[in-house]
This record gives sequence, C-alpha cells and structure tokens, in this order.
Amino acid sequence: MTRNLVRAFAAALAFFFAGDALAQAPASPDAMAQTEARLRDRGLSGSGAYEILESLTTEVGPRPAGSPAIARAKDWALAKLTSLGFSNVHAEPFTIWAWFKGVETAEVTAPFPQPMVITGLGGSVATPPGGIEAEIVLFPTFEALQAAPMGSLTGRIAVLTEHMGSNESATGYGAANKWRRKGASEAARRGAIGFMLRSLATNNVRQPHSGAMNYDEGVAKVPAVALSGPDADQLERMARRGKPIRVKFTLLPTYLPEATTWNVVGEIPGRAAPDEVVLVSGHLDSWGLGTGAIDDGAGDAIAMAAARLAGERKPRRTIRVVLWGAEETDQAGGAYAKAHAADASRIVIAGESDFGAQHVVYFQVPAGSADHPAIRTLAETLKPLGVALNPEPSRYGGDDVGHLVPLGVPQLAMRQEGAHYFDIHHSAEDTLDKVDPAELDKAAAAWAATIYAIAESGIDFRKAMPVK
Amino acid sequence: MTRNLVRAFAAALAFFFAGDALAQAPASPDAMAQTEARLRDRGLSGSGAYEILESLTTEVGPRPAGSPAIARAKDWALAKLTSLGFSNVHAEPFTIWAWFKGVETAEVTAPFPQPMVITGLGGSVATPPGGIEAEIVLFPTFEALQAAPMGSLTGRIAVLTEHMGSNESATGYGAANKWRRKGASEAARRGAIGFMLRSLATNNVRQPHSGAMNYDEGVAKVPAVALSGPDADQLERMARRGKPIRVKFTLLPTYLPEATTWNVVGEIPGRAAPDEVVLVSGHLDSWGLGTGAIDDGAGDAIAMAAARLAGERKPRRTIRVVLWGAEETDQAGGAYAKAHAADASRIVIAGESDFGAQHVVYFQVPAGSADHPAIRTLAETLKPLGVALNPEPSRYGGDDVGHLVPLGVPQLAMRQEGAHYFDIHHSAEDTLDKVDPAELDKAAAAWAATIYAIAESGIDFRKAMPVK
Repeated sequence: MTRNLVRAFAAALAFFFAGDALAQAPASPDAMAQTEARLRDRGLSGSGAYEILESLTTEVGPRPAGSPAIARAKDWALAKLTSLGFSNVHAEPFTIWAWFKGVETAEVTAPFPQPMVITGLGGSVATPPGGIEAEIVLFPTFEALQAAPMGSLTGRIAVLTEHMGSNESATGYGAANKWRRKGASEAARRGAIGFMLRSLATNNVRQPHSGAMNYDEGVAKVPAVALSGPDADQLERMARRGKPIRVKFTLLPTYLPEATTWNVVGEIPGRAAPDEVVLVSGHLDSWGLGTGAIDDGAGDAIAMAAARLAGERKPRRTIRVVLWGAEETDQAGGAYAKAHAADASRIVIAGESDFGAQHVVYFQVPAGSADHPAIRTLAETLKPLGVALNPEPSRYGGDDVGHLVPLGVPQLAMRQEGAHYFDIHHSAEDTLDKVDPAELDKAAAAWAATIYAIAESGIDFRKAMPVK
Repeated sequence: MTRNLVRAFAAALAFFFAGDALAQAPASPDAMAQTEARLRDRGLSGSGAYEILESLTTEVGPRPAGSPAIARAKDWALAKLTSLGFSNVHAEPFTIWAWFKGVETAEVTAPFPQPMVITGLGGSVATPPGGIEAEIVLFPTFEALQAAPMGSLTGRIAVLTEHMGSNESATGYGAANKWRRKGASEAARRGAIGFMLRSLATNNVRQPHSGAMNYDEGVAKVPAVALSGPDADQLERMARRGKPIRVKFTLLPTYLPEATTWNVVGEIPGRAAPDEVVLVSGHLDSWGLGTGAIDDGAGDAIAMAAARLAGERKPRRTIRVVLWGAEETDQAGGAYAKAHAADASRIVIAGESDFGAQHVVYFQVPAGSADHPAIRTLAETLKPLGVALNPEPSRYGGDDVGHLVPLGVPQLAMRQEGAHYFDIHHSAEDTLDKVDPAELDKAAAAWAATIYAIAESGIDFRKAMPVK
C-alpha cells in the first residue's frame, strides 16, 4: 500500500464515519419541521392513497377473512407493497375461524306477507336450510330485552329495534356495539329461537349492516341477523296493529373452524436505528356486502401511502406497514402479538387507521409525550390540516394494535371525522364512490408527517410514560 | 184535502223545487272560491293521505300486478274506500301478462371475482337456472350501443353504463327510458346473449332500479337486468385495466301469460250532475323491491284523500277515484278504456297522481280552458301552495288516463316536485320513511281544491277545446 493510497483510504474512512455520524443523528428541529411541512403538502397535493384504494377495491372487492378473496387480497398487498418500494415484504399466515355470508332471506309471513331485507351477523350459526319461522316479539331498547323474564320468548324470534345514535351520543357505536354482540344470547337465554337487530346505522337506507356477534358460553346459539332500518320501522308499524306477526328467515353462511389468513407486512428500513420500528396499519379484511372502501381499504391506503411518503425522507427508524388479515372478527392483532411477543419491544409506537376515508380531526400520543418538542413541532405542522393535538394520552390505537398494549407497545391514535361513517359501515354501500380523494389525501398527509416526525425523532415513548 | 193542507203542500212543493233548482245550480263564484280555500287549508292541516299511505305500504307492501299481493291490495282498496265513505265501491278485473322478480344474482367471475348487485327488468325472460356467463362489452352511451356493428356482440353480454341525467336534462327519464325499454333488443340484434343496464337513477346508492322493458319483434329475447350505479362504476374501472371481463348472472323471474288484476273504483255521487264524472287516480301496483310508497302509494293516497275532502262539499258532479291495477306494465289504462268505451263520454276530465309524494308545482288544464273564470279562481286558490297554472294545455294526464285520450277524455295534469324522485323510484328504497307527511298533505290540498273546482263548475272541457 503506497502512502498516497493510505492517505486516500484514511480520508475516505474519515468521510465515511463523518457521514455515518451525521446519518445517526436526528435531523435538526428546523430541518424536521421543514420536512414534515413538505410531507404534509406533498400528501395534500396527491398522496397516492386514492390510487391504492381504487386498486384494492376494484381488483379484489369484498374480502372476508378466511374466504378465497382474502388470499387474493394478500397477493394484491404483496405486489402493491413491492411496487411501492417497500422492503422485507412478506405475509405472516395465521389460523382463524372464518365466517362469510351465503343465502340471506327474510319475509313477514303473517298478517301482512312481504319480503324484508337482512344480512347475517358475523359469526352467527345458520338456520336449517328451509329457514326458521316464528312469531316475533319487538323490543324498543336493549334494556327492555334484558328486562324480559326468563322463558318469556320461548319459541319466538326477538327483534331489537333500538336506534343507534350519532357517533358521539349515548347510543353511539360504542354503546350499540353490545346490542349486536350480545343480543342473540340475551334473546336465547329467554327462550328465543332467533334474533333480529335493527342495523347499527346512522341513516335510514334500505341496507342491512353486518358486523361481528358473539355467543355467551352455556347459552343456546340462535341465528342472528340485522334488518335494514326501514324494515325495522315496518315491523314496528305492523306491531302497532296489535296482531301477532310471524317472520321467516333463512341464513346459510359458511363457517370454517379453521382457515388461513395473513397479516401482510412491508418495511422501509431506518437509516440509523433500523431496529426501532414505527408500526402503522390498516386492515385488509372486510365484510362481504361492500368492497371495503371505507372499512378499511382507506386505512390500508392511508398507511401505505403515508409510510411511502415518509420513507422517501429516509428517517432514522424503520417504518413498518402492517395490513391486518382478520380485524372484523378480532383475530389479527392477537395473532400478531403472539408471533411477535419476543420482538415487540422494538416497536416504538403502533397506530392503526380504521375509521374511514375522511380527514384526521385530532391525534393522541402516549402519556407523557405530548409536551416533547418533536410532538409540539408536529402539532404545529398538522394545524393547517385542521388536526388538533388531543392532550388525552393514547391508550389504544385501534382494534389490532390494541393487542400490543399488554406487550408494552405505546399507541398512536389518529381520530378521523366520521359523521357519516356509520351510514355506510359494514353495508353494501361501502364502495369507492363514497370516498372523496381530497379527504383521503388530507388523512394521508397527516399520517405522513406524523410517521416521519416519530421515525426521525429519538422519542422513547416507553420512557416518557409516567409511572402509574 | 183542506185548503190549509193544499196551501201547506204547495208551499212544501215550492220549497222543494226551489231547493232543487238551487242544488242544480253551481255555487256562486265567491262561494266556490271560499270552499276551495277551505279545502286547501283543510288539506294542509291534515288531509288523511299519509294515514292511507301508511296503511297500504304497511299492510300490503310490494304489490306487483298479477302477484298474490295485488289481490291483497285490491281487498285493501275496497275496504279503505268503503271506510272513507265512497259509494259504488267495486273492483273491475282484467287479464294481463304478469312478471315478478325471483332469484337475482350476479358476479364478476374474471379477472376480479366479486358479487354485483342487480335486479331484473320487468318483462325480461329468465336465464337458465344456472345463469349465463360471458365476456362483457361496455358501452358508455346508448348511441354507442346502437352504433356497434351487427354481429359484434356475438356470445357477449352488453353493458350500458350511461348515466341518467336530472329530470329536466337531455338524458332525464324521458330520454333514458328507452335505454331500458330497447337496450336488450339493440344488444340481441348485434348477437348479445344478455343485457345489463346502469340503473336509471339520479344518485349513486348501491341499489338497482327496476322498470319495464320490451322486446322488439323478430329479435332474440335475451335476459335483461339493471346494475346498481356503483356496480356499473366498478365494471368501468375494471374495463380500464384492459383485460377481458367475464360476468355471470342468474335471473329467475315468474312470468304468467295470463293473470288477473283489478282497477279499483269508488265514487262520490254528484249532487246535481251525477252522470258527469271527474276521474282522479293513482296506481295500486308497484315493483317488487320497495313497498311502493312514492310509486305509487302516494298517488293512491293523494287521490283518495283529496276526493274524500272535495266530496264532503257535495259538488254537482260525481267524483270517481280509480286505483289502477297494472300501470308498471302499462296494461291498466288500456283495459279501462276498452271496458268504458261506451261511457267514457261521461268523464268530464281525468287526472292521475304518479310522480311521488312531494308538493304540486304546476297544473295544466285542457286546451281552451285556462282562461275559464273557474280555472282562474282555482289558480288564485292554489298560489299559496306554490302551485302555478302552466298555460300549456294538458294533453296527457298520466300513463293510465292517457289511454282515455283516444276516447276524447280531457286530461288534467298536476306536476309534482321530483328532484329526488329518481333516487328512489323502482328500487328497494321506495319505502314510507322517504315520504314527508307535510309534503304529501300539500299535494293532497292542491288536488282537493282542484277536484272541487272542476266538480262544482259547469266547465265543459270538450267544448272549450279549440278546433285543431
């Protein structure tokens, strides 16, 4: 080795280490603020989320977990993440029970024969092939159903006609969810042979809204369906005539005790701290009626588009996108937590976009971190998007990432506008035409800036957490 | 007979004839104006139309002509007219071909398998029990379909995705109707084995809209269905990928070459000219998806409620309500015209309410009668309801009463507001909850004053007609 060569080598080495030291350090606060603002504006001017959503909803359509369609969705996701430049793209299979809709018919047989519009609740048992027919008993509230004496519904079909309220009301989705989850067992416990629920919806379109239900242990499993709002109204009008009403319904879903689904993953490796992971996600599965545009193709598209945009800035930490494969039946987050118990400590924070395709109205960060300078800067960046920093700590980032809480994974919550979300949610109306591309971009812009801010910063949310 | 008795008898006789002469004469213009205004205000404050509509849609529901439901609708109408105090209540049976929906399923089988939402077009032939499956060819306009070369659709399914425009536009219902009526034969003439139409609708709800279609003589009869708007959008998006698209659909309607339906009639006999008949009507039949609330339970309810209100004032002429038994397949008016060719000359005027449940925006009277003092007074009475007198002569009062034009029966046209009529028309959304009782009362109020004005007046519309 000549002296010149040695000197040249030493210079190169020095340059390399200097560059590396620079690469290791977080960007300056000013540089971060500038990059966040650029990401926000870049997202607003066309994040790419709509194109991703258009592709998923058109090329795959409805994709219930465990159905052949979810396998196509997994293949779509692998190809799309790869084409968007993600690394380490792979699918993590897991075993679930699966349920998807089949024949679903209902009619009033007496005294005013006419068809009704229903759909099965996810997880319901089937009726016999010829259906079930019985006199119905109407309950205006879930409380009234719970107050019915044991044995009072023997041989009857219980119908719960309570109206879900707006999202922020006392009978909003949080409260109404239990009517759908618990109604069948509450009815069966009192002797009912079937359960019908007024769809959990905030409008009165003639569409039934599906969603998962559960059976209580030790109670007869009876078939459970959702009526469209106008059909529930119709039964109430009939009931006011005072004559016994008989209803027949047939529900022949497919139930598989074991099926395969996948959480699909793609990463953008961190430039300096690749073992620190910022996890962002949406869910790939949907119910069978619509094409899963707002629930939750939009979340997949937001997560993918925002991660890609943030990733172009090569932040220090790794960005990991996870597209959950069985959110609707609540089997994906648990499977992931089980598979990743050993490496969950690497996940700096986990967030999930699963409330439609509208803009973000506020965000929440883990306890103790709202005052971190990087978060304060981020909050300023997001203000022009109408996004507020909600000072309440984020204890729960979504149905799937929530399963990581027991593993100590800090949660990121981005709350979207959703005044009309439950007009569409879980119904045949959940199609691409309901999505406003500008709103979707606005949501992706907020996520992109947020992902970058956290991935570039050195915030340790675990340390920031106050001792309880 | 004593002189006193003779005098008393003569006095009684004089009183009787004076009374009779008074009864024979039309009310004074002032008295008529007062009565019309009272009827208008009475209608506005609760015409009873909503209660009639609630009863029909609840107790009968969907009622396709020729189905068991139309027989129940006929029984309902006989009972309701009787209970409302109508005389000469009866049903006039006639024989029709009948068509009503059965199994209706569709799916894309390749390259992006997923279900689609369809309904059969009224009158369509069935598919084989297993359905038909073929590559589709999309046409963005009816003109493009008509321009396709003969033989170019051999073995394919033609899909027409043209959007219906608002009611007043160039592609409003008047123009779009022929796409539904003629599309199947235009496609079949070019070799197609099936025809799919983007639903004629002014919104983008995931509901298909039915309606009658016809086959051209000498052209193969191929099954014809309507896609929901979002499903038509979806096929267009798929088509932009450039790959062949295969669709399968199954349509198993009931077709009866001979079935019975009824025009149901009730009258309020005229106090002075009972042989002069003011005919007002709606149609009792509906398509099978909704409960026929706006199409046309509302028209039945408006006609019945308005006739009852006007009849309470005992006008000179007879008011006849006709509830048509097969408007949707255009078989009721012709049957009535055939049965009443001999006595159609007694019908002073005929009107039909068949454009929903909203208020009347204008009315039209036969040529030469708009300047009649009674019509001018009526126009003043209706002004506070927002109803204008359209000076264009009424040449056509509706799909059923239009069949009386060749018999020389003058037509009355009451045009209703309908900006959202085609959002709902012929779809599952046509249910009672879409009706605003106050709007329905407003329509009934306009009809009540109009019926009274014509029934009390001596206008002879036939004489008023100018020589052409």
